[in-house]
Amino acid sequence: MIRVAINGYGNLGRGAEQAISRSKDMELVVVFTRRDPGSLTTQGAPVAHVDDMPDWADEVDVCLNCGGSATDLAEQGPAAAAHFTTVDSFDTHAEIPAYFASLDTAARQAGHLALISTGWDPGLFSMLRVLGEAVLPEGRTTTFWGPGVSQGHSDAIRRIEGVADARQYTLPVEQTVEAVKAGDDVELTTRSMHRRDCYVVAHEGADRDRIEREIVTMPHYFADYDTTVTFISAQEMAESHSGIPHGGAVIRRGETSRGTGATVTFELGLGSNPEFTGSVVVAMARAAARMAARGQTGARTVFDVTLADLSPRSPEELRADYL
Amino acid sequence: MIRVAINGYGNLGRGAEQAISRSKDMELVVVFTRRDPGSLTTQGAPVAHVDDMPDWADEVDVCLNCGGSATDLAEQGPAAAAHFTTVDSFDTHAEIPAYFASLDTAARQAGHLALISTGWDPGLFSMLRVLGEAVLPEGRTTTFWGPGVSQGHSDAIRRIEGVADARQYTLPVEQTVEAVKAGDDVELTTRSMHRRDCYVVAHEGADRDRIEREIVTMPHYFADYDTTVTFISAQEMAESHSGIPHGGAVIRRGETSRGTGATVTFELGLGSNPEFTGSVVVAMARAAARMAARGQTGARTVFDVTLADLSPRSPEELRADYL
Repeated sequence: MIRVAINGYGNLGRGAEQAISRSKDMELVVVFTRRDPGSLTTQGAPVAHVDDMPDWADEVDVCLNCGGSATDLAEQGPAAAAHFTTVDSFDTHAEIPAYFASLDTAARQAGHLALISTGWDPGLFSMLRVLGEAVLPEGRTTTFWGPGVSQGHSDAIRRIEGVADARQYTLPVEQTVEAVKAGDDVELTTRSMHRRDCYVVAHEGADRDRIEREIVTMPHYFADYDTTVTFISAQEMAESHSGIPHGGAVIRRGETSRGTGATVTFELGLGSNPEFTGSVVVAMARAAARMAARGQTGARTVFDVTLADLSPRSPEELRADYL
Repeated sequence: MIRVAINGYGNLGRGAEQAISRSKDMELVVVFTRRDPGSLTTQGAPVAHVDDMPDWADEVDVCLNCGGSATDLAEQGPAAAAHFTTVDSFDTHAEIPAYFASLDTAARQAGHLALISTGWDPGLFSMLRVLGEAVLPEGRTTTFWGPGVSQGHSDAIRRIEGVADARQYTLPVEQTVEAVKAGDDVELTTRSMHRRDCYVVAHEGADRDRIEREIVTMPHYFADYDTTVTFISAQEMAESHSGIPHGGAVIRRGETSRGTGATVTFELGLGSNPEFTGSVVVAMARAAARMAARGQTGARTVFDVTLADLSPRSPEELRADYL
């Protein structure tokens, strides 16, 4: 059994907990928190304060850092790598090289392995971007996101006067997706690629026309997109918009000879963004634990992971049943 | 530059030649053939007889075995592995474990590496089957093939009396594909998953009704499918059905928590089946050459390959631009 720790018990940590419970070769041995351990109720695993991490060094094979990129991981990552092999889903794209360097130093010094930026983007989407370009060197890679909830855009709507609650979905423009797959010469712009659907609960008596106008003309957030606004009741918001779905597609379109095309499409449709991210982090934890057991140290990314290490099955079983 | 040899100059070998010409870090140094080398015209590479392979041992980093699985590779694989690091697309699923063992012995004895069963199925589809199951351990994996030409089914039609030429396309049943992606409880049978479209050139005066009846009732080949038969002219056959398109989809549908689903879809749409297979074999050759350069020997599969080794780009570049 691979002994796993979860560091941070928000949406992602709870998603990872679900995924561990579905993995027969893994067990959750502890949840670390910065809060009072007594204030957390897990699905069964003990809770410990992050300051007590050193006590768990011999009990844990791999620690999943489930904090957010913006604030938590820059500190959480190197701190945990001092005690454990770690996996995270650091997703601030521009800062990945610096974060990699920081984790590489911390992990090497401690003799551990740190697998960073797993999840689905970065993560699975990154893997498919590299795979698509490797097999079709001459071509174009396009990424679409959604249908999915954007927290930032939902928050932007909630700040408008008269809005009680809001939920914003980003959606790929289907005809553009189809054109890209077909290799048609389509112009890819902000507006041609994605549209935005907004569901808004207005305060009683609020001016809905003004709210709608403020949304669709909001610079950066909505003005450059085709945006629809639908006013709904608080009850409908609670009943139909409480999930955190997401997904998207990475499409590589290229030529294999002059005039002969090929399309490689990787598509995700996710009922729960944090649960699926947690599922990927847990599969990557299996690989990280195995790579560490072979003596590897330092920082790694999804590009360094083999499918054999991701799978709970034996190489013989994979060759016989999956090739 | 990675120095590549192509062993066997049929459709796949020519597809690999195209792919090498699109890969800036690779060069084709020789094409091996069992025929008279003077009878082959390549796009520029010299041609040598397979018996002269030993002379090329120091000139070649990786040899692509482009023979067919049914007859050629069982011999060609171990023979080439005695002289080179090799890559092939062995695709007789049931015989893969035995083929792996044979190549593993040959490659280890010679101190080489042999990467077997690359291409797209087995190959990319196999990788995605393992990836899908690793991230969604509780679920179902479904593979659809097509739209694509089936050589065996085309040949079966050609053997019918009165048929001058025929081309058979296998197509996934779109509504079943959509149901599988949505996680609907759909029954997966031969008929519900794929259908068959047949284009037939009949001899003048042939009984078309009988030909159609013989096709759609043919056991194993067509009787269990919804099959359409369209009679066309020899000219239309030549103009509209000369390509070798193929493709398909691997779909993993699973749950991340009770009642919350996720779908991972990998889809290929290929203008030319042998050209795309050649493209994959060439990308895998890059990985094999790198793994061999690190001292690895013996047989390997796509499950043992990292994306970092598949890509011509540096790890730094991949982390900065592809994560």
